[in-house]
Amino acid sequence: MSEEMVVTPWKVSGEVNYERLMEQFGTKPITKPLLDRMRRIAGYLHLQLRRGIFFSHRDFDWWLDMYEAGQPVGLYTGRGPSGPCHLGHLLPWFFTKHLQDVFDAHLYFQMTDDEKYLIHPELTLEDTVGYTYENALDLIAVGFDPEKTHIISNVNHVHRLYRLALQVAKHVTYSTVKAIFGFTDSDNIGIIWFPAMQAVPCFIQSIIEGHNVAVLIPAAIDQDPYWRMTRDIAEKLGFYKPAQIHAKFLPGLGRGGKMSASMPETAIFTIDPPEVAARKIMNAYTGGRATAEEQRRLGGDPSICTVYAYYYYLFEEDDKRLRELEHRCRSGELLCGECKAELAERVKRFLRDFQRRREKARNQLDRFFLE
Amino acid sequence: MSEEMVVTPWKVSGEVNYERLMEQFGTKPITKPLLDRMRRIAGYLHLQLRRGIFFSHRDFDWWLDMYEAGQPVGLYTGRGPSGPCHLGHLLPWFFTKHLQDVFDAHLYFQMTDDEKYLIHPELTLEDTVGYTYENALDLIAVGFDPEKTHIISNVNHVHRLYRLALQVAKHVTYSTVKAIFGFTDSDNIGIIWFPAMQAVPCFIQSIIEGHNVAVLIPAAIDQDPYWRMTRDIAEKLGFYKPAQIHAKFLPGLGRGGKMSASMPETAIFTIDPPEVAARKIMNAYTGGRATAEEQRRLGGDPSICTVYAYYYYLFEEDDKRLRELEHRCRSGELLCGECKAELAERVKRFLRDFQRRREKARNQLDRFFLE
Repeated sequence: MSEEMVVTPWKVSGEVNYERLMEQFGTKPITKPLLDRMRRIAGYLHLQLRRGIFFSHRDFDWWLDMYEAGQPVGLYTGRGPSGPCHLGHLLPWFFTKHLQDVFDAHLYFQMTDDEKYLIHPELTLEDTVGYTYENALDLIAVGFDPEKTHIISNVNHVHRLYRLALQVAKHVTYSTVKAIFGFTDSDNIGIIWFPAMQAVPCFIQSIIEGHNVAVLIPAAIDQDPYWRMTRDIAEKLGFYKPAQIHAKFLPGLGRGGKMSASMPETAIFTIDPPEVAARKIMNAYTGGRATAEEQRRLGGDPSICTVYAYYYYLFEEDDKRLRELEHRCRSGELLCGECKAELAERVKRFLRDFQRRREKARNQLDRFFLE
Repeated sequence: MSEEMVVTPWKVSGEVNYERLMEQFGTKPITKPLLDRMRRIAGYLHLQLRRGIFFSHRDFDWWLDMYEAGQPVGLYTGRGPSGPCHLGHLLPWFFTKHLQDVFDAHLYFQMTDDEKYLIHPELTLEDTVGYTYENALDLIAVGFDPEKTHIISNVNHVHRLYRLALQVAKHVTYSTVKAIFGFTDSDNIGIIWFPAMQAVPCFIQSIIEGHNVAVLIPAAIDQDPYWRMTRDIAEKLGFYKPAQIHAKFLPGLGRGGKMSASMPETAIFTIDPPEVAARKIMNAYTGGRATAEEQRRLGGDPSICTVYAYYYYLFEEDDKRLRELEHRCRSGELLCGECKAELAERVKRFLRDFQRRREKARNQLDRFFLE
């Protein structure tokens, strides 16, 4: 577990130290006053704020100022459509839906089907554009408002994006993207251009509405380099700097590391048959002991347990019950088999319901995609 | 005049040595057998071939083979719309129209309004897209066939180009464009991406027609770097390598250098009032002597005379009369005043006629632009 931490838009590896990331990236922690403010505005504090899953930000306080001053606010997040979605992708979307509900805000959602084609040697444009529409079903199933949600396919909506992307690109040198993203001379000229495309949805609502909109980007922290670049040039183009709120990564079901589609046995995909997902959970890495006897005597360790993490991140909304679960584990009262079986039941229930909504979404794609 | 020769898509300076350029770029001269072949196919030899204005090529012989074998052939050329057109821009278009007539070929004509925006700090997208439509009037006035000519605005037709551009970009590294175009780390990420956009019209007819088309690009030789890059990757994408035929630059009316919009007093713009153009010619740099007496005695020097160049490149179609003109100059019989006045008359006549056709073109723009 001593592998060096790497967090870039294309690679997350090693044990992620979120404190150090905030320092490296120059972001701010979400402090108690900010949490209190969100509790006041929303009427309660969302699980992902209560539990520090969204933990860091840039100008989130300014964005709230704008909202409270009655200024137009918007949301932007996205997805790199290189395969089916798993729970790690859904995690920040659940919180984004919460933000849409609370702030009654338009969400521009970018599918970077150009980027995924450019960086994956084996993927064709048909593949990545296909995943755009498949992944959109997942997004819709989360429950976003069709009147206020606008999905963008970079490839199919390029005519809505190219002018703004050119304006961004004109202000960003190769030196800059080399420093921010670590590009090298053997990277292709498409991926070097791409950060300009990812910047566009920060500004598109301002263009569409004809006035400046304060945009907040809820996303996992690996995407932060794009916003550093975009914040640097936003005002030169006459827009506000986009604000960000950063999420931690959902762990995978294996030992260490975030949930990743490249390790399918440790990821729960939204299209997994519920029984398959249940089996993955029954095989998950836990904080349990070698034998039941030993565990009854010494207790388990939730702090390294992926099963506990799933309760914590997603599947036990009730803080009191979560504390009880932790206590029963540490005391040796709750064994891993029982704990996993209960999570497996919850995940199966979740997947059955989600997959029903996901199928219904097939008829709603038109309502959600940008014109 | 000993300034070092620089010939890139963005800069042409110093005295251009076309022999050395062919060596540097690795292109081939247009030889007698190739000229004979063109004479046979066209029924005559066009002025710009007869006089070596189109002087170099890559695979032009292969392109003629394809034509003679009944395979589909097409043409591609373009323009960087950063201002009004002058005669230097029109020169290769006249020859391109000849090619369209002889080979009954579709012409895809790219307006690089994205590129011109990216490289000129002072130009807005409104400027460059505006010039796209203004410059299109010039193109139409040359007399191209509306059924077979398809003008592309990179900005407005990006939805027709982006997928192909991504395919090109995925196969071209920053190292490659650095070596070919001399980009540096302080260039913006838009202009680094742009060569992928310029490659697209090499392949678009193949996509539209659903079979591979052999494409010939008639253009000034400064554009050659794009085709070196494109030829390298064409077959990886399943297309033919585009063939090229390269033109020399029309000289400006000043001492040395090509006609350039940045020196408007030495360039004849298509929108110049005919009297203004005539005045520029009366002020042109010639091969004349200090006094009329001296010139009668020693004769003039057409080899360094811009007025003679205009007869040679454009305004004296008849080879016999051109030789007479040269002889009368060298012998001291023809003085510069008379020679300039005659050219001014021809240019005025040309401009009056061209401007009439250019105005009529305003109603035809829709027929010429790609859908």
